[in-house]
Amino acid sequence: MNIKIAMCQMEVIPGRPDINTEIMLAMIEEARMKNAEIIVFPEMCIPGYLLGDTWEQTSFLKDCESYGEQIIAKSNDLIIIFGNVAVDWDKIGDDGRVRKYNACFIAHDQKLLGGDNFPYPFRIKTLLPNYREFEEERHFYSLRKLAEELNQKLDELMQPVYLSYKGERLGLGCILCEDSWYENYFTKPIELINNKGGVHLFINISSSPFTLGKNNKRNRLFSRQARETGVPLVYINNVGIQNNGKTIYTFDGSSTIYNCRGNIIYHCHQPFKQSLDIVDLNLSNGGTNKNIINSVPDQDISCIYRSLDYAVKKFTKSIGINKVVIGVSGGIDSAVSAALYTKALGPENVMLVNMPSKYNSNTTKDLAKILANNLGCFYDVLPIQEVVDHTIKQIENNPAVRLADNKKINLKISPFIAENIQARDRSARLLAAVAAAFGGVFTCNANKSEMTVGYSTLYGDQAGFLAALADLWKHQVYELAHYLNQYVYGHEVIPQGIINLVPSAELSFEQSVDKGMGDPIIYPYHDYLFRSFIEPWERVTPEDILKWYSDGVLEENIGCEPGLVNKIFAGPAEFIKDLERWWSLFNGMGLAKRIQAPPVVAVSRRAYGFDYRESQNGIYFTRQYYRLKEQILRSC
Amino acid sequence: MNIKIAMCQMEVIPGRPDINTEIMLAMIEEARMKNAEIIVFPEMCIPGYLLGDTWEQTSFLKDCESYGEQIIAKSNDLIIIFGNVAVDWDKIGDDGRVRKYNACFIAHDQKLLGGDNFPYPFRIKTLLPNYREFEEERHFYSLRKLAEELNQKLDELMQPVYLSYKGERLGLGCILCEDSWYENYFTKPIELINNKGGVHLFINISSSPFTLGKNNKRNRLFSRQARETGVPLVYINNVGIQNNGKTIYTFDGSSTIYNCRGNIIYHCHQPFKQSLDIVDLNLSNGGTNKNIINSVPDQDISCIYRSLDYAVKKFTKSIGINKVVIGVSGGIDSAVSAALYTKALGPENVMLVNMPSKYNSNTTKDLAKILANNLGCFYDVLPIQEVVDHTIKQIENNPAVRLADNKKINLKISPFIAENIQARDRSARLLAAVAAAFGGVFTCNANKSEMTVGYSTLYGDQAGFLAALADLWKHQVYELAHYLNQYVYGHEVIPQGIINLVPSAELSFEQSVDKGMGDPIIYPYHDYLFRSFIEPWERVTPEDILKWYSDGVLEENIGCEPGLVNKIFAGPAEFIKDLERWWSLFNGMGLAKRIQAPPVVAVSRRAYGFDYRESQNGIYFTRQYYRLKEQILRSC
Repeated sequence: MNIKIAMCQMEVIPGRPDINTEIMLAMIEEARMKNAEIIVFPEMCIPGYLLGDTWEQTSFLKDCESYGEQIIAKSNDLIIIFGNVAVDWDKIGDDGRVRKYNACFIAHDQKLLGGDNFPYPFRIKTLLPNYREFEEERHFYSLRKLAEELNQKLDELMQPVYLSYKGERLGLGCILCEDSWYENYFTKPIELINNKGGVHLFINISSSPFTLGKNNKRNRLFSRQARETGVPLVYINNVGIQNNGKTIYTFDGSSTIYNCRGNIIYHCHQPFKQSLDIVDLNLSNGGTNKNIINSVPDQDISCIYRSLDYAVKKFTKSIGINKVVIGVSGGIDSAVSAALYTKALGPENVMLVNMPSKYNSNTTKDLAKILANNLGCFYDVLPIQEVVDHTIKQIENNPAVRLADNKKINLKISPFIAENIQARDRSARLLAAVAAAFGGVFTCNANKSEMTVGYSTLYGDQAGFLAALADLWKHQVYELAHYLNQYVYGHEVIPQGIINLVPSAELSFEQSVDKGMGDPIIYPYHDYLFRSFIEPWERVTPEDILKWYSDGVLEENIGCEPGLVNKIFAGPAEFIKDLERWWSLFNGMGLAKRIQAPPVVAVSRRAYGFDYRESQNGIYFTRQYYRLKEQILRSC
Repeated sequence: MNIKIAMCQMEVIPGRPDINTEIMLAMIEEARMKNAEIIVFPEMCIPGYLLGDTWEQTSFLKDCESYGEQIIAKSNDLIIIFGNVAVDWDKIGDDGRVRKYNACFIAHDQKLLGGDNFPYPFRIKTLLPNYREFEEERHFYSLRKLAEELNQKLDELMQPVYLSYKGERLGLGCILCEDSWYENYFTKPIELINNKGGVHLFINISSSPFTLGKNNKRNRLFSRQARETGVPLVYINNVGIQNNGKTIYTFDGSSTIYNCRGNIIYHCHQPFKQSLDIVDLNLSNGGTNKNIINSVPDQDISCIYRSLDYAVKKFTKSIGINKVVIGVSGGIDSAVSAALYTKALGPENVMLVNMPSKYNSNTTKDLAKILANNLGCFYDVLPIQEVVDHTIKQIENNPAVRLADNKKINLKISPFIAENIQARDRSARLLAAVAAAFGGVFTCNANKSEMTVGYSTLYGDQAGFLAALADLWKHQVYELAHYLNQYVYGHEVIPQGIINLVPSAELSFEQSVDKGMGDPIIYPYHDYLFRSFIEPWERVTPEDILKWYSDGVLEENIGCEPGLVNKIFAGPAEFIKDLERWWSLFNGMGLAKRIQAPPVVAVSRRAYGFDYRESQNGIYFTRQYYRLKEQILRSC
């Protein structure tokens, strides 16, 4: 049996069932014209997936239902498979609100299929992810809970959808996203469904955000499932961007077909691009007649660039903005930011502003100007020294008074306070106003290393509408700079001088780039130390770091250059002091600042915001940490 | 059988097992001296409850386990019941991380009880809440899932803890928090446990945040459970504050004993106060020999004040700060904020700063000064006009240039942009620097009405270390002003002139308080409209509002004064225009600003931040909304 499958890798606009339905209707028409027999759309393609608590709006649920009916109405003579929220208006969820399922609908000849061997005429997601940015248990009732409620074995509810198509009995195993990512669950949906027999094709509809390294992991998992069941598997994912307020996710699509031997036989060619591909699949031989396609690299800097470029284009569009203002210091982060936005939005929509104080060197001022010239953006120089001096004087010369007894308090601006005054003067006084006058917004150029320890000023350089680079460690920012010059622009737009410069905030004479004096963060080590605090699945704390240090496996375990630690630190006491300093900043000021940070574009396995959730609970070291510390210090 | 119960309503410090264990050890000693026989601590009293993703740190879990062992070691001759995370190091959770349970430990004679009729020697929380600020499915494995994994009926796992005490067999029904809030679940833990027979006492250990109106709801629910099972019920809750970054929760304790008829026979006397009470309970008569206590009001402004005062005291302490700077405009929000902080921290720790521009009236400037005098705080006047003028000139006189062709862009500062420049000048230029020099932080005085629609400036009046009033609607801010004057201070500290004033931002001559020209928000209506968008359990959208409007039940349904809508709006067209304006701001700029807002103290059933979760998905009206709108406009 041959079947023509339309792989509808559509761009889903979250919270816009009206627009999504329009896209779907157009794709259905196109697929019909191209003689498709099964049309497959992604998970939650009508409502969108990351909607926050919009799921609590009854009127929105009804709206999604009514758009779903429009799709079902188009299924004469073909099979349409799509994701939507399914509501059981007679039941409640654990939260007492109306019962919602994350569902897969299978429509044929204007009817919904699958109700013959299942309580509902649709399929319900079994495994609901509740880690990272996912929180499906908050909104949806899983098949696991339904089985418990119905007092049935979950196994009994795992049923293929059988239909009669062109005179033959066709068995479809319809599952949703996490149902195939079952490594950590004792329930293996695909096996249980396959055990029922007669399954010709598995269809996994997904709404799976892009993460570095995820595609190849998915290929390994999904290949094995196809191979073990001996049934081909079609994976359909959406493109677009979705967010949960604090964190922005891109969706790369990367829809794929695996044949019954687990080989990839089709790939939607362009990631991050809406596409409609018709694939002719021979169900009799499980697709083994097709050529095998190799999977592509999914972890290198080109993937990061593609995701960030897409995020910037789509996010600005989604908030109705096409102009940005970028504060450029002559340093690496703002230069990479400028190159990224300029490519995404066009130089006519980007304004670079250099805002020197007396501490800024001619070196960086010149580099900022060269950068602007290279990129062809608008460029402005707005010095801050005058207002910074005025602010310090205004505060120091106007003591506060207790009116009852005329007691005065003279306020003194320390050098450290003056540093932050400069940073806020740039962003909150100038950039915000310039951006408004330019008809746009201003960017936050912070990277993940400084976000980790709060090496930035709140309402200063940490401010902005979007933190596009805030999921990149400093060494990745440099990699991206090279990539932008070499591959994106094909010539040096970010001056080599900026790449060579010591990273520095230039907020005091102590931070002189010309004397090679810069940030207190030693990136070749701290990038990896900080990464270990947040990115590993079982997260690392100073206790683990000390243990690895005393076992001599620290560099190996955190992934930095071997031998580095002893080059940097004179001895254990210095090593420990440094560790405690950054751990304290990570959990102290760094966290306080992240609470008020702009949205972060996620590319890693753990981004700040709503992916990595934090309580402002202060600094803590375990009892075992103190024991190890004492041991180490005693023995040296 | 008589038993002496020690109700340990302790202050739990989240993320500090070391401190919590110390408190517990001291309480155990005290209870032992007072001849207690059962000592009961709250849920998760060792680790704390709201810890974000700290649960992913293996070293932290081991730390909590080791502190738990210390408590168990103290149980010679008495029964200690306490909450802690329980780890099964041989199993994983759905996320692939080590398996964690939210558990209740019952220790006696240095042994853990309950393992004779259950897979573990502790009890596991059955119902895991996943709404509002709760996300237990993210971290913990529920008893429901364990039953599914073990292929057992949940009912079989619902077991009392039986122990031999003073020669008698004692049955304890040990449950955790949500297990008693089972209205919306089909599983009723307390019934299932009671069905096993021989239960003398139910013990619910909780970590239940304060919410207006929650205590009386709990009394209704828990009373019924005690009455229906005929078994007395002890409820132990912690005090303290905990947070999830964006939202701060207070815990009021309010630990209570219900006798077997469901009557309250004991109340820990002071909410928000750590206490150790010994209660002699006659298990033979189910506590019916005790006097019945009436429940107390839990919804009025005194409860709000108590919670906010506690939040301010504890939060400042938790971040190591005792000094605050408050920008005072002469308006109501900053005046209430000033009175609240001054009472909590003492006038010597509070500095009020008035920052007038040319638009500020003598009326408000004088009122701000009177306020400072009444409160006895330090007071400063720091005008902003000079720098605001400088900023506008600096931007307008320095066109940006495209270097390649010398094309210039002249930027123009509109009156609207100039308004925001003023607001940012106050907070980001002055208050932040003044606060640092004063050795403290500055406050955000925003209320919930303006937070809803973003009627505030990002990095301006929306900035601050904490938004203590941001869960109060404007009318509640006025109520709080009256309460502060009348009951907290006992005399007029907030001048009546401030209370009488029309609310106004005074950012332009159009916003003149002397001419009675103020905010565009008509609080007596909009407070209630906005509340309907976020606080009801099934949330209201413009579709519902239009339906209610055309059915003539709008005011009744949203709770504002009857007849108000027709007084405010000339007709349906104006009504609809207003509705669309605010709905758009709520989902547009308001949301974008909330993403970067300071932490909010939660008192209502739905606070901004991590309680009400939002995706920045733009403005949406359902199809049914447009139909209703057309009908209404056509018929008028």
